[in-house]
Amino acid sequence: MKARVTIMLKDGVLDPQGEAIRHALGGLGHRGISGVRQGKVIELDLDGSDAEAAEAEVKRMCEGLLANTVIEKYRIEIV
Amino acid sequence: MKARVTIMLKDGVLDPQGEAIRHALGGLGHRGISGVRQGKVIELDLDGSDAEAAEAEVKRMCEGLLANTVIEKYRIEIV
Repeated sequence: MKARVTIMLKDGVLDPQGEAIRHALGGLGHRGISGVRQGKVIELDLDGSDAEAAEAEVKRMCEGLLANTVIEKYRIEIV
Repeated sequence: MKARVTIMLKDGVLDPQGEAIRHALGGLGHRGISGVRQGKVIELDLDGSDAEAAEAEVKRMCEGLLANTVIEKYRIEIV
């Protein structure tokens, strides 16, 4: 089973990487971009076939290691 | 309109960040993880409402700046 975790900075938290990308895209002539946010995606290959148990386990991984929940939000998809 | 670009290392390209995460999760007692890959996600707020044109524009951004297509693959979603 595969789990995908998407980790983004919370809304309102300054995202200098996203701003740098926006600036660079503008410099390359891309117009009409009103905002850019950059985050991380982590794909986990998990043994077992119980999607619900896997999601609970991945949630523990996020809270314990993968995400800094003070400034980051995360989303888990079991695929 | 919002576009989400997910950039991952191509299969077969060594991912030391993913390996480090796998090792750390093992150290925290998480079992049954057979592989971890880490990538980037970039969310773009775009003006305009033509999804097809937006996707073509984002594809140009990926090829020109966002992804290193030698070692990375990318996926574009218009949301």
